[in-house]
Amino acid sequence: MAKQFDVVVIGAGPGGYVAAIRAAQLGMSTACIESRSYADPKGEVRLGGTCLNEGCIPSKALLQSSELFDQAGHSFVMHGITVGDIKMDVATMIRRKDNIVTQLTSGIRGLFKKYKVTLLPGHGKFAGRGDGHWQVDVGGEIVEARHVIVATGSRARHLDGIPVDNKVICDNAGALCFDQAPKRLGVIGAGVIGLELGSVWKRLGSEVTILEALPDFLAAADQSVAREAWKVFTQKQGLNIQLGIKINKVTQSKKGIAVEYESGDEAKTLEVDKLIVSVGRMANTADLGIESVALKLDDKGRIAVDGHCRTNLENVWAVGDIVRGPMLAHKGMEEGVMVAELIAGQAGHVNYDVIPWVMYTHPEIAWVGKTEQQLKNEGIEYRAAQIPFAANGRALGQGDTTGFVKMLADARTDRILGVHVIGSNASELIAEAVVAMEFGASSEDIARICHAHPTLSEAMHEAALAVDKRSLHF
Amino acid sequence: MAKQFDVVVIGAGPGGYVAAIRAAQLGMSTACIESRSYADPKGEVRLGGTCLNEGCIPSKALLQSSELFDQAGHSFVMHGITVGDIKMDVATMIRRKDNIVTQLTSGIRGLFKKYKVTLLPGHGKFAGRGDGHWQVDVGGEIVEARHVIVATGSRARHLDGIPVDNKVICDNAGALCFDQAPKRLGVIGAGVIGLELGSVWKRLGSEVTILEALPDFLAAADQSVAREAWKVFTQKQGLNIQLGIKINKVTQSKKGIAVEYESGDEAKTLEVDKLIVSVGRMANTADLGIESVALKLDDKGRIAVDGHCRTNLENVWAVGDIVRGPMLAHKGMEEGVMVAELIAGQAGHVNYDVIPWVMYTHPEIAWVGKTEQQLKNEGIEYRAAQIPFAANGRALGQGDTTGFVKMLADARTDRILGVHVIGSNASELIAEAVVAMEFGASSEDIARICHAHPTLSEAMHEAALAVDKRSLHF
Repeated sequence: MAKQFDVVVIGAGPGGYVAAIRAAQLGMSTACIESRSYADPKGEVRLGGTCLNEGCIPSKALLQSSELFDQAGHSFVMHGITVGDIKMDVATMIRRKDNIVTQLTSGIRGLFKKYKVTLLPGHGKFAGRGDGHWQVDVGGEIVEARHVIVATGSRARHLDGIPVDNKVICDNAGALCFDQAPKRLGVIGAGVIGLELGSVWKRLGSEVTILEALPDFLAAADQSVAREAWKVFTQKQGLNIQLGIKINKVTQSKKGIAVEYESGDEAKTLEVDKLIVSVGRMANTADLGIESVALKLDDKGRIAVDGHCRTNLENVWAVGDIVRGPMLAHKGMEEGVMVAELIAGQAGHVNYDVIPWVMYTHPEIAWVGKTEQQLKNEGIEYRAAQIPFAANGRALGQGDTTGFVKMLADARTDRILGVHVIGSNASELIAEAVVAMEFGASSEDIARICHAHPTLSEAMHEAALAVDKRSLHF
Repeated sequence: MAKQFDVVVIGAGPGGYVAAIRAAQLGMSTACIESRSYADPKGEVRLGGTCLNEGCIPSKALLQSSELFDQAGHSFVMHGITVGDIKMDVATMIRRKDNIVTQLTSGIRGLFKKYKVTLLPGHGKFAGRGDGHWQVDVGGEIVEARHVIVATGSRARHLDGIPVDNKVICDNAGALCFDQAPKRLGVIGAGVIGLELGSVWKRLGSEVTILEALPDFLAAADQSVAREAWKVFTQKQGLNIQLGIKINKVTQSKKGIAVEYESGDEAKTLEVDKLIVSVGRMANTADLGIESVALKLDDKGRIAVDGHCRTNLENVWAVGDIVRGPMLAHKGMEEGVMVAELIAGQAGHVNYDVIPWVMYTHPEIAWVGKTEQQLKNEGIEYRAAQIPFAANGRALGQGDTTGFVKMLADARTDRILGVHVIGSNASELIAEAVVAMEFGASSEDIARICHAHPTLSEAMHEAALAVDKRSLHF
């Protein structure tokens, strides 16, 4: 007889494994299907999905290592620290990254054991509908599930005529494993992944050129942040970023890769040793048996869901990159929790208006809520304030005063509508703003809350004060 | 005729200068009196008080420089970074610190100009009461003030028989200016200042012994935090900390300083090249003309005030280290704002229950609200949870997994009663907890708020989940 579960989750990325753990915590018999082994030396299935295996986690490891290398070369001198020849052993850096990934992916295995989630290795897809349950095919074997949660995630989008081999032409997976910093590195796409990975290799000595099709830089970010980032990345850090370009042709030869492109009316050629293609990600809906059960997709090829991640099929849910909304691990995790709780008859909910965004460049960029241009477009009257870290004692102490905190509040109610941070530790500073916005805080609330001195968080406090034109330190 | 002001603030430290700026913003004619020039090369009066000139700010500058030096020597290797001979030029480190202080203290002068606060250089003290105003003596000249705010701060407590010259035997002022790391450094007092400054010089090569009279380490902190800190400081970092000791005699000779002390029944002698005395701070009430106007002190020699910083005298207020409550710059600043707003007829208020504490050692320590031992003593039923940074992806990525986040919530209402963080960036992570507690958040509130991945803040999220025994990553 087929194995039976209350809940079967297809995919063990952040949305999937969290959904599985939460479902199991709530007393449901739960299985999680995963097929990918990524770079596992034994070829075993690895949990954690793209995020853990070839996304957020390994990139942050490399960003940290390369940032320390960069600091040693550039910032030490002002502190009075002198070092001799600074060298990066890329193999050690990559091995540290791999070890972190291994540790965390094993950690999820441990959590599955602890919370009694059954791991089903193999490719999962819908096989049909039985009496009150779904049949799911796991590598040829059928299991039965009262509820199915689809969490198959996304994959890097590739471009026609630019064959990714993840050796010379790479997507995020290959770009995390270079055996040395290429002399000349090309990046197609100036989004989060392109900028983060471009930064890593730039710091380690690569000459980096980033080609972006869109005319605007970081169009999703607040324009003040995008402008500041542009200035820092291009002028201070020497990233060569070209906007509004059109790729015509990519050819590989012994000498390297030639990228022919148009910039305005000019035809140009970029010659590089490695090329990263980071032009967005696509939902993994292939070979999922979608047609066999008539699971509906939306107009962008993702699984169509309502505000609570319900699909058109009874007791079939979908979470994470496979559905609408930002492709962010933490958004997927919250959806995983919500769905598990809804299945258990609880009141799960995700507040999509208050999901933080982070870019781990240096300076980091993080925001929550609306950008100033969104507020303008929506005709919402607002008050805005911006406090530079140059006016912050902790930032001065740390020797890193790049960036600012910008706060946007409703002109009538003073409710905070958006917070945008560019600067050291932006990824952590944004947490305060997220909590405040979840509580419907006004800028005056933050202005009246005691912030420890000296901290970078005081810039958030000052920004809140400045919304009412009563900043104390600016 | 004497100069007349609506508000005269005595002292330009964090409590004083903020009170002055806020009063001026609210349209009152405001003066701020300051006498100290600290290390100003031209002997000019310097604003910012102890915090800026010889406290929080310069110590953080040195902590950052020494931490980078320490990283280069100890952490680089795991990232694959090799450097040659690592040297610290202490003079450059000190100069950077001095420049930061100069920049910030000049910044406050700029703010005084911007907001039209009159700076009155000289020693300020009460001279008497006129018709509806107070007379204040500023270095011999009388000014008249409708309201007086006393913000004269605190000074390092010294010990009988241990004469501080700030060259060989130092308090916080001298310990920030060593021209090189002493070979052997003694520290009397294992409080915040002793541990921060002890850490700075330890990282730069000093052999550091810290002698503490109290039998418990970091008695004000949550015991779990104190235990973890003890382990890290003594075992990993090699600080020699001795508790429950009694200093008998300190003698100076050409060979250095001999500190004779008792530890249990044993008589011991510590020989060092420099000695830091960091045994707390005392309120600056001397030569303030307190008797002439009959301003009341409390039983600890501080100016007695009510919950809104009112003294026993009409229109005389006191804020910051000179009054009850923790000697923290940000507490003084909030009091400064409150008093200025109360004088202006507004509804100023400070929530003393939600003031964060921070220690800038490495790992950093920060907390807000009650400790577990306080809750036990008060008979409050609580639920506690603790999440180690070792289970946090960002911490792993950064290569620094020391410490944890601990959350305490009311067992009945789930309201958060205390949050304790020991770890990298604790000083910034605590801001989220402060905001949550100001909103009377439950642990479930934090558990249901989306936290960016991967961030250290996720440990706060997990701790909140763990209060209800449903952590997802532990």
